[in-house]
Amino acid sequence: MNMFEHVTVIKKANVYYNGKVTSRTVYLEDGTRKTLGIILPGEYEFGTDEREKMEVLAGTLHVLLPGEENWTSYGEGQAFEVPSNSKFKVSADDVADYCCSYIHE
Amino acid sequence: MNMFEHVTVIKKANVYYNGKVTSRTVYLEDGTRKTLGIILPGEYEFGTDEREKMEVLAGTLHVLLPGEENWTSYGEGQAFEVPSNSKFKVSADDVADYCCSYIHE
Repeated sequence: MNMFEHVTVIKKANVYYNGKVTSRTVYLEDGTRKTLGIILPGEYEFGTDEREKMEVLAGTLHVLLPGEENWTSYGEGQAFEVPSNSKFKVSADDVADYCCSYIHE
Repeated sequence: MNMFEHVTVIKKANVYYNGKVTSRTVYLEDGTRKTLGIILPGEYEFGTDEREKMEVLAGTLHVLLPGEENWTSYGEGQAFEVPSNSKFKVSADDVADYCCSYIHE
């Protein structure tokens, strides 16, 4: 699926780390929240409230999940999940494009 | 209007200048194309096909329109238009968030 149809998009961006990570919030018809984001080269830490599924749309993300000792890399078309109420680190060597789905439990 | 409803969003981002300018494409119900974008600090040149209306959602954009000798600054809530089939320069000192509307003539 290369597009989201019949959705609501919040105009203003979400901006983190001086704009090196930015995203737009999209709500699907069923209320599911997603963000479409860009990660520029660098290393960043984020916290989750809900469980998150991160899908790489372009580029590569290196991820250090909570409790893990080793980073794992995810390329275009790959995805990883982050538990709710946790912190994870993500880094990119080049521009990365992602879609994050928030999983209400 | 702080959101677009009943729209189609293309998942993959549009990436320019190594990610220093990125945007997502949104199609309204009537087929109107818009992009929601981020401009990081720097100076950039873009070309237009259709006429474009650029609305600043956050931050400030400095713009050199075609045929102009002086740059003009536009802050949050302000907008400027760029003629079709032209080139313009835009610069930002800090992160800027914008909405571009493509005006089919």
